[in-house]
Amino acid sequence: MNELVKYRREFHKYPESGWNEIRTSARVGQILTELGVDEVYFGEEVVDTALLEGIDLSSEKRQENLARALRQGADAEFVERTGGCPGVMGVIRTGKPGPVYALRFDMDSLPYDECRERGYRPVEEGFVSVNTGRVHACGHDAHTAIGLGLARRLMEEKESYTGTVKLIFQPAEEVNFGALSIVSKGHLDDVDGFLAVHLALSAENVPLPSHTMCCGVRDFMSCRQIDVTFHGHAAHPCGAAQEGKNALLACASAAMNLHGIAMHEKGLGRVNVGAIHGGDCTNTICPECCISLEYRGQYREITEYFERRVFDILEGTARQFDMTYSYVDHGENPAGASDLVMMEIVEREAREIPWFEKVYFEGNLGGTDDAAAMMNRVQEHGGIASYIGIGCDTTQCLHNPGFDFDEDCMGAAVELLERVLRRQMGEDSAE
Amino acid sequence: MNELVKYRREFHKYPESGWNEIRTSARVGQILTELGVDEVYFGEEVVDTALLEGIDLSSEKRQENLARALRQGADAEFVERTGGCPGVMGVIRTGKPGPVYALRFDMDSLPYDECRERGYRPVEEGFVSVNTGRVHACGHDAHTAIGLGLARRLMEEKESYTGTVKLIFQPAEEVNFGALSIVSKGHLDDVDGFLAVHLALSAENVPLPSHTMCCGVRDFMSCRQIDVTFHGHAAHPCGAAQEGKNALLACASAAMNLHGIAMHEKGLGRVNVGAIHGGDCTNTICPECCISLEYRGQYREITEYFERRVFDILEGTARQFDMTYSYVDHGENPAGASDLVMMEIVEREAREIPWFEKVYFEGNLGGTDDAAAMMNRVQEHGGIASYIGIGCDTTQCLHNPGFDFDEDCMGAAVELLERVLRRQMGEDSAE
Amino acid sequence: MNELVKYRREFHKYPESGWNEIRTSARVGQILTELGVDEVYFGEEVVDTALLEGIDLSSEKRQENLARALRQGADAEFVERTGGCPGVMGVIRTGKPGPVYALRFDMDSLPYDECRERGYRPVEEGFVSVNTGRVHACGHDAHTAIGLGLARRLMEEKESYTGTVKLIFQPAEEVNFGALSIVSKGHLDDVDGFLAVHLALSAENVPLPSHTMCCGVRDFMSCRQIDVTFHGHAAHPCGAAQEGKNALLACASAAMNLHGIAMHEKGLGRVNVGAIHGGDCTNTICPECCISLEYRGQYREITEYFERRVFDILEGTARQFDMTYSYVDHGENPAGASDLVMMEIVEREAREIPWFEKVYFEGNLGGTDDAAAMMNRVQEHGGIASYIGIGCDTTQCLHNPGFDFDEDCMGAAVELLERVLRRQMGEDSAE
Amino acid sequence: MNELVKYRREFHKYPESGWNEIRTSARVGQILTELGVDEVYFGEEVVDTALLEGIDLSSEKRQENLARALRQGADAEFVERTGGCPGVMGVIRTGKPGPVYALRFDMDSLPYDECRERGYRPVEEGFVSVNTGRVHACGHDAHTAIGLGLARRLMEEKESYTGTVKLIFQPAEEVNFGALSIVSKGHLDDVDGFLAVHLALSAENVPLPSHTMCCGVRDFMSCRQIDVTFHGHAAHPCGAAQEGKNALLACASAAMNLHGIAMHEKGLGRVNVGAIHGGDCTNTICPECCISLEYRGQYREITEYFERRVFDILEGTARQFDMTYSYVDHGENPAGASDLVMMEIVEREAREIPWFEKVYFEGNLGGTDDAAAMMNRVQEHGGIASYIGIGCDTTQCLHNPGFDFDEDCMGAAVELLERVLRRQMGEDSAE
Repeated sequence: MNELVKYRREFHKYPESGWNEIRTSARVGQILTELGVDEVYFGEEVVDTALLEGIDLSSEKRQENLARALRQGADAEFVERTGGCPGVMGVIRTGKPGPVYALRFDMDSLPYDECRERGYRPVEEGFVSVNTGRVHACGHDAHTAIGLGLARRLMEEKESYTGTVKLIFQPAEEVNFGALSIVSKGHLDDVDGFLAVHLALSAENVPLPSHTMCCGVRDFMSCRQIDVTFHGHAAHPCGAAQEGKNALLACASAAMNLHGIAMHEKGLGRVNVGAIHGGDCTNTICPECCISLEYRGQYREITEYFERRVFDILEGTARQFDMTYSYVDHGENPAGASDLVMMEIVEREAREIPWFEKVYFEGNLGGTDDAAAMMNRVQEHGGIASYIGIGCDTTQCLHNPGFDFDEDCMGAAVELLERVLRRQMGEDSAE
Repeated sequence: MNELVKYRREFHKYPESGWNEIRTSARVGQILTELGVDEVYFGEEVVDTALLEGIDLSSEKRQENLARALRQGADAEFVERTGGCPGVMGVIRTGKPGPVYALRFDMDSLPYDECRERGYRPVEEGFVSVNTGRVHACGHDAHTAIGLGLARRLMEEKESYTGTVKLIFQPAEEVNFGALSIVSKGHLDDVDGFLAVHLALSAENVPLPSHTMCCGVRDFMSCRQIDVTFHGHAAHPCGAAQEGKNALLACASAAMNLHGIAMHEKGLGRVNVGAIHGGDCTNTICPECCISLEYRGQYREITEYFERRVFDILEGTARQFDMTYSYVDHGENPAGASDLVMMEIVEREAREIPWFEKVYFEGNLGGTDDAAAMMNRVQEHGGIASYIGIGCDTTQCLHNPGFDFDEDCMGAAVELLERVLRRQMGEDSAE
Repeated sequence: MNELVKYRREFHKYPESGWNEIRTSARVGQILTELGVDEVYFGEEVVDTALLEGIDLSSEKRQENLARALRQGADAEFVERTGGCPGVMGVIRTGKPGPVYALRFDMDSLPYDECRERGYRPVEEGFVSVNTGRVHACGHDAHTAIGLGLARRLMEEKESYTGTVKLIFQPAEEVNFGALSIVSKGHLDDVDGFLAVHLALSAENVPLPSHTMCCGVRDFMSCRQIDVTFHGHAAHPCGAAQEGKNALLACASAAMNLHGIAMHEKGLGRVNVGAIHGGDCTNTICPECCISLEYRGQYREITEYFERRVFDILEGTARQFDMTYSYVDHGENPAGASDLVMMEIVEREAREIPWFEKVYFEGNLGGTDDAAAMMNRVQEHGGIASYIGIGCDTTQCLHNPGFDFDEDCMGAAVELLERVLRRQMGEDSAE
Repeated sequence: MNELVKYRREFHKYPESGWNEIRTSARVGQILTELGVDEVYFGEEVVDTALLEGIDLSSEKRQENLARALRQGADAEFVERTGGCPGVMGVIRTGKPGPVYALRFDMDSLPYDECRERGYRPVEEGFVSVNTGRVHACGHDAHTAIGLGLARRLMEEKESYTGTVKLIFQPAEEVNFGALSIVSKGHLDDVDGFLAVHLALSAENVPLPSHTMCCGVRDFMSCRQIDVTFHGHAAHPCGAAQEGKNALLACASAAMNLHGIAMHEKGLGRVNVGAIHGGDCTNTICPECCISLEYRGQYREITEYFERRVFDILEGTARQFDMTYSYVDHGENPAGASDLVMMEIVEREAREIPWFEKVYFEGNLGGTDDAAAMMNRVQEHGGIASYIGIGCDTTQCLHNPGFDFDEDCMGAAVELLERVLRRQMGEDSAE
């Protein structure tokens, strides 16, 4: 089994959800250090915790994650270096003048149980998640492995490069503030070129299978996540039903209406109510119920349309049920787009790699990735960026708990990134 | 502070939900024993655990409850006697021939947090629940205290009685199988007369305030509780929405329709969806969601109507969303009615008690109590029974987490029960 | 075929909805006149049209109804006397001092199509409705026939009575203002006793079959009817969906929530959305949609509860969809109750009539009848009133378009009313 | 006022909905005839009525439309030639060998009331719709005027053309079978080039303002329209609610769920419930309710996804409410796409026209037009086709009853079509 597969399966087995990636961070930091990467930063050196309103990074939480990381085999020294806060950045300094490139690899898992059925490879081959309620169903295990594979290649050939490479291993892509907290720290301020990869995107709206890729996507949607709680009033459902204010029904009605919001014809937009929780027993009118929702839009106008409709529905529902609501705002990830110039560079290199039998210039994300926050910052000061899709055959769609993929694609991804960097930063590069 | 108030506040402070009433059982058993009650039975001597499908009485669970009971000050000897299974029955045997009377007192709490606001008496006077997610909001703390108060009075005057009195301290009235498991054990098979009391019922559909009571209720509804899970399919809400099957929306739609079931014109009936839980995050289409519901009916025809409508909606919802559903059945408590003969006996005695300034012959339960299962068994073999309502001023309606009441009513309840027993079982009674 | 059946079938064949009962009024007036009733009043002599806001009694409408009445065989003279406004009152003056009694018979049909299936008696025997969209599915055809049968009996025996009898043939019981407009005219101001009959009520919540009756009902609910229009905004559902405001969805959501309003535990209450109309085609977002609804309550507190909940939902729905709503208020019929004294009188007489094999003292209306407005007025000045239920086997429940009934019951109803009047107003009566 | 404006306003004033365009057809036929167009075909010569299942073309309907057309000033001779069936085709035969070109102009209105507010130009200038419930809110009045303007130009320069031009004035674009019935007649079988124009499309998802255009669209969605009726059971909402089966609630619930169907990520798709009708009064549980809906998809896979979801919801709703449903299928218009070759031809000519300050190569329909059925037929035998968007400032979005537009665009449209034809069919054309 090659190194990429070994890494990926290790990360797959020990998934950690956003802001809890301590074992992963420790392992990544250890490997980068062992590879001789010039500088390796951890935790609060990488992320700006001042930004993280609403995120639990209390010392109890940190202790819990540190303890788990140790229990699950991470090296004590590197666990300690995280300080209980996830995020790692390796900086390779060639010492020669040249451009600064940053690459983003996300590390967090999704917060639910993995498939446990016979025949599912992670079960059969023993790398299914050992963490209850945690699963790598979005390929971040692969992204992290790709980042480490690239680090080895770059270190092996370091002399042939100029400039500086920042390998950013980001926490919390699925939840919030992951990318923003790194941007806030200033790590993207001097970056000339930025790249990120993601498995299993689409092109021409069809999922990219193995041996295909797309050189960039330009249809990032913004995404704002909020948790909304309706505050009703408990009462016995027979003895005093008229005194109750049914928060469960309020949430049910709101969810129906939120999913009925009309599309915006000028571009992509989506609303999803992903979680609902309320009530403890059948014989009390539910006094409090919470829905977790997100809305996304490809352009500002669209995001604002959905925001307006979402809050109209929340306000109106509260009015319907004569109750109040409150919400926790998990912030908004921005929209964004790859640069055509960078996409052309990627295209040229991709066409040189035999594994990519079909190369699409532009692909579809049709969703959100907070890598856009990094891209935006790079583009603001004149840098160029792309978010590359790596095709791979899969067992299920992304975010399904039975998502597994053709691990072969990881090697091609490493090769592609390496070629692009060599072109842009190699001794012989035009620049 | 009189003994009844002391007991009630103690039980109020340490609420235990159905099938976990170990501290309460130990305390009740201890007090009965100290009073010299002839026989005191505990746990599996009282309840038939063979019946308790779906109830967690595992040894882990029992250990947990035993440990908590000890931690919260219950006597080790009596905690041990429960064996980790709740339920106590005290039997007073006069040794003289005479009727057998049984009285039911329920002990369990509701499964949510108590009000913590300033000005709320349990907070101000220090007896607010110390058990998170547990609250006595249905008066069972008072019922248990009344049972103990009655035990003392009966023991003090034991020589003046004939026959046998069974004081049944029942677990799990709010959930399931509490009364049925005791009936199943045969404890009601030889009973000639049965009484239960409940605070805060209504008469002429108006809540009974302090200084009022009703001699019985005849409008018990049956109640069946089920937990229904819809099984959908997870998918990314942007990348592959069409592959998702949204279990959250299925539950929302089902809840709306369940609450829209038309009433049955021949009598009382109710449906309540009391809890809903599904989903972990906003960026995945919710693959599994559960609703907990109950339906009730005053007559068999009505219960069957609601059952048919409920399952039509569940089936139809699954069909709408192309998914399956499954459910856990927590069983059905039966309907029932007090005997007019017993109500007349109660009425005569109630009129003798000055605290009861207004006596209603018939009151309204307008709900369900599994005491009906005991009543039905007693009535089947020719016994008579009544379920008595004791009026009391309250701060909130039943099942509201801020429910508190005029504790004065407890003394009147003890006196009433004692008078009825004396009339039926006293040396000088007609019988 | 006896006269009652002949009359009933004639009225059944020519049903007329509320405020359009011109053919029926002309026929009733003609028959009363032919019987020699002392005074026969028509139209605006009977009803106060000043009250009828929102009711179309325009001259076009009147001409249309007059023309139809003539076409359907009513006598030209009596058609003319209606002046195009329905309502008839026959007054029998004995000339002897004595009480004034009023009896109410309602004449209007329901506004939908009758059943047309083979085997349905009105089809088989040729008296099925010839008026599209009109059906006597509430027994008012029978009530009118009973009123005429009673008129003949009273006229035949007029000499043996004292006092005055007012036979009120009321329009518009199913819609609005029927009874109120007659009360407003002052016709009930001098009335000492009031009676109304209705077929197919219930007792002990079970429909009354043939050979049974109930002497009065005390559970009238108030009923307010409103037509609510939501005003959205049309747009192409693909080209510009985000500019639309979907009034159809607003009404759908409101209807779901209106039917989900919790019952009030202190007594009867109901909400029904009976009609919904919006949109013309599939390829436009529906800009305007109307729902017709009613809410009822047994007591003022309950009516107010439902009113509050209904308007919360309407307001909240408008807020959810960022649109406005307006409504037409069809007014409120009051709650009411029969007098026990009058019910006892009725009971005594009913027990003398062999057709009534079972006599219930109190029955259930479980609904609304604007006869309550008349009863309330009579009771206000010290009169007594009852609303009597006449049992009859039926093919369907009330308001079903296939409702037919055992016509035999009409004779018993006439006999009962006659006996009560004789008891109260006969030469030999105690009074 | 120029001729195009005059024509447009005339058609605007007398809108006729699908399959009722008799006045319009008569006027179009008259003008074509007066212009000397070689052959003018009417009604069943143009459309295949054998196809029109579910469309009312009864002789009563035809008489009604013929009579209205005469009343509204159409010439008796041409009214007669329609035979009461709409549709006109003018054929210009140059007599010289050359290609056959067909152009489609749609004539039908939408089925609702036009805006009547002050300040709205059709009101102010006297050409607002005189037909209640009919409005040209989709620009078909302009399309028809453009067709006539083009006819004049072609006839004026006929000698300079080769080949044959078919000017097809199509009925029923908004409803069904309009284009299909003409295709079925074979009129597109010999066509080499096909063009249609539509006002107010978009490009880059932004509505095209005046002085812009797009050379073709490739995102036609299929569209199937069905009217679904749920068959419940009437009952009195208080007296016998449990016997009712509420078809209104079934439709409300279905509508909510239909609008909640998740998008398909591979391309465009839409569902719209555009109309709902059920119930006659508030005091009967609604026994029958109808919803009119459409679903659209850009590709077969998407259409099939929506079809499956729609029928799952209909089936499931019927199951929920224990009732049946039936539907009338108004057929499906196909998806389609303009040919790039034709779009390039159009582009070249458009760039020559000063009025078009901005020319987009590809635009967005983002919807459906049954012109796709004609395009598909032409493409099947090797012809080329495009569907051109003509930009114009508007007062409202398409399908809003207050839609008016910059009439100046019509002249540019005529010029563009003429130039394309001249290029392809002119004496001097390459071909």
